[in-house]
Amino acid sequence: MTALQFVLETSTPNGPRAGIMKLTHGEVLTPVFMPVGTAGTVKALTPRDLRRAGAQICLGNTYHLYLRPTTDVIHLHGGLHNMMGWGHPILTDSGGYQVFSLESLRKITEEGVQFRSHIDGSSHMFTAESVMGIQETIGSDIAMVFDECPDAKADRAYVERSMERTTRWAQRCINSRTRSDQAVFGIVQGALFEDLRAQHARALSAMEFEGLAIGGLSVGESTEEMYAMVRFVTQHLPRDRPRYLMGVGKPEDMLWAVAHGVDMFDCVLPTRNARNGMLFTDDGELTIKQAQYRMDLAPVSRECSCYTCSHFTRAYLRHLYMAKEILYSHLATLHNVHYYVNLLKRTRAAIVSGGFQEFVEEILVRRAAGNNRKSC
Amino acid sequence: MTALQFVLETSTPNGPRAGIMKLTHGEVLTPVFMPVGTAGTVKALTPRDLRRAGAQICLGNTYHLYLRPTTDVIHLHGGLHNMMGWGHPILTDSGGYQVFSLESLRKITEEGVQFRSHIDGSSHMFTAESVMGIQETIGSDIAMVFDECPDAKADRAYVERSMERTTRWAQRCINSRTRSDQAVFGIVQGALFEDLRAQHARALSAMEFEGLAIGGLSVGESTEEMYAMVRFVTQHLPRDRPRYLMGVGKPEDMLWAVAHGVDMFDCVLPTRNARNGMLFTDDGELTIKQAQYRMDLAPVSRECSCYTCSHFTRAYLRHLYMAKEILYSHLATLHNVHYYVNLLKRTRAAIVSGGFQEFVEEILVRRAAGNNRKSC
Repeated sequence: MTALQFVLETSTPNGPRAGIMKLTHGEVLTPVFMPVGTAGTVKALTPRDLRRAGAQICLGNTYHLYLRPTTDVIHLHGGLHNMMGWGHPILTDSGGYQVFSLESLRKITEEGVQFRSHIDGSSHMFTAESVMGIQETIGSDIAMVFDECPDAKADRAYVERSMERTTRWAQRCINSRTRSDQAVFGIVQGALFEDLRAQHARALSAMEFEGLAIGGLSVGESTEEMYAMVRFVTQHLPRDRPRYLMGVGKPEDMLWAVAHGVDMFDCVLPTRNARNGMLFTDDGELTIKQAQYRMDLAPVSRECSCYTCSHFTRAYLRHLYMAKEILYSHLATLHNVHYYVNLLKRTRAAIVSGGFQEFVEEILVRRAAGNNRKSC
Repeated sequence: MTALQFVLETSTPNGPRAGIMKLTHGEVLTPVFMPVGTAGTVKALTPRDLRRAGAQICLGNTYHLYLRPTTDVIHLHGGLHNMMGWGHPILTDSGGYQVFSLESLRKITEEGVQFRSHIDGSSHMFTAESVMGIQETIGSDIAMVFDECPDAKADRAYVERSMERTTRWAQRCINSRTRSDQAVFGIVQGALFEDLRAQHARALSAMEFEGLAIGGLSVGESTEEMYAMVRFVTQHLPRDRPRYLMGVGKPEDMLWAVAHGVDMFDCVLPTRNARNGMLFTDDGELTIKQAQYRMDLAPVSRECSCYTCSHFTRAYLRHLYMAKEILYSHLATLHNVHYYVNLLKRTRAAIVSGGFQEFVEEILVRRAAGNNRKSC
């Protein structure tokens, strides 16, 4: 297996780790935030913008790309890297999460999932083998196994059955691999049942995956439940492979997870919330439409070195937002992606220098103070 | 008057001219296309993008900026250049065209125009003096006089009365000037009546304007009527001052006007049509949503050096368009603005080298052939 090499630079048992993940399209320093590029674009950003924001790796989504532009178009380009003009690492989600979200539109069997397209209602089938095939065509550096992410309200019996099927699918995914330049990660499920989580973590860790992900969190459970489960599951994952917490989350959530040994994150919050008017800073979030920013000549954050903060005022960004200008989404996304990516870079530097605890405490205190002040 | 110096590098009587226009924020080589930044942003582009596309000067609109973000916000920033992060020349339209478009929402008197905001219905008054004051606060390099652009269907009597009032307003604009670093252009009206156009051109040319614009075209008349009027009016404009054809137009229209001695152009076509899926090239327009581009690995134009054409295929752009991705608007606008700006740069080079006729013929033939082929 040469598709992924993972070297830990510094780590403490069950604590924060700084690593280097070597992939086909380049190295990724961990812990890392991976901006989400669902349909072959991180919304509102060019690859050039993404790179300038410090991104080392971004996500694509198998479900969305399979439906549009469809696999043949990606194949014609020689893969997603070429098509979207991003020469650096890409991770693809398997589409499992998306098809299981289409509750009324899908049917699960041992073979796979029959579902209807959210675009045109057409009927499709995803299996472990087909999803791996699509991801091989996409040519991502890291492919994710086809898993079921059970509903947050599912009972123990269902979660257990689903988990066992996900394990069988995981083995089928491994069996269908044909590319030696693509890493594959397993996804640990088990909802909020500790024994099931531990059992699934052990089962997947015993398989030939280059990394392990924690799935099925940030799907409706409380923050406390999520935090407890992240702490629990990481203890059951192999130390020598990268750990990816899927779909999480707020800055505080990522810092908690890093503290317990997670290496990789993705989340739509920085991009989606940017478009909705929320801008992230060390002093909490700004809701840019608020009247208090109408005459505010400060940048979003004085400490931020992104293009947006280097050139534009809050008052101008508020104006663009109120006028529904496309440039607003571009500049806001630039800032938020820069913030997220660099929060993880700063976290890594703190781990390496031995100042992780102090760093996390400062961020948590400042952000809590800022957000409390704003909601008063 | 040092707000504008205009030097003609090469010119022929009533023919094409290559000039240098020195403004407070820099030099502009003419003929020039000026991208439209209505509300303080060329839609979907950063100032950095705009500069990379080759833009030397862009437009702002007094009506839109006055209503939103409002003049006090622009004043607080020390002017529009600072607010929008564009350190190069800016021209502002006076708002005349906009308020006269609000047909049911405005009332014209000798004093000025009472109108209702298209945003919230609030009542406002524009006069020659107030519009000049707003443009001085905006701090544009070139301000336009407050004029009336009569309806295309207006009769001769109305056009004549309106024109005479526009002349009185023009004098009031001049009388109210207080900034020596801002040039002011007069606007020749007169609809499609040659004698009125000639009379107005003479009247405005006799006043202390640093440049003259041709207004009231591209408002519903035929292409033949517009072409004839451009040729006619330019003969009645002073040779030593820049000439600006407002709101025009297609590549062919601009080449025609340059051939008859026009120096400056603005138009929303490259930006608006980009967002609607139309991409300009020397071989005619591409409608990117067409199925023929689904598997097309070519760039929009092989001859184009813009970021979009250097990095992305038609197939990818079509995908982004179909998926309603914001990045589509960004990349398409980048290309179209680059095309328009550079078409005028290439035109200037052809004038300077003495190859203007050949250049125009080649472009017209190629574009006509391309557009005919596409519509077959």
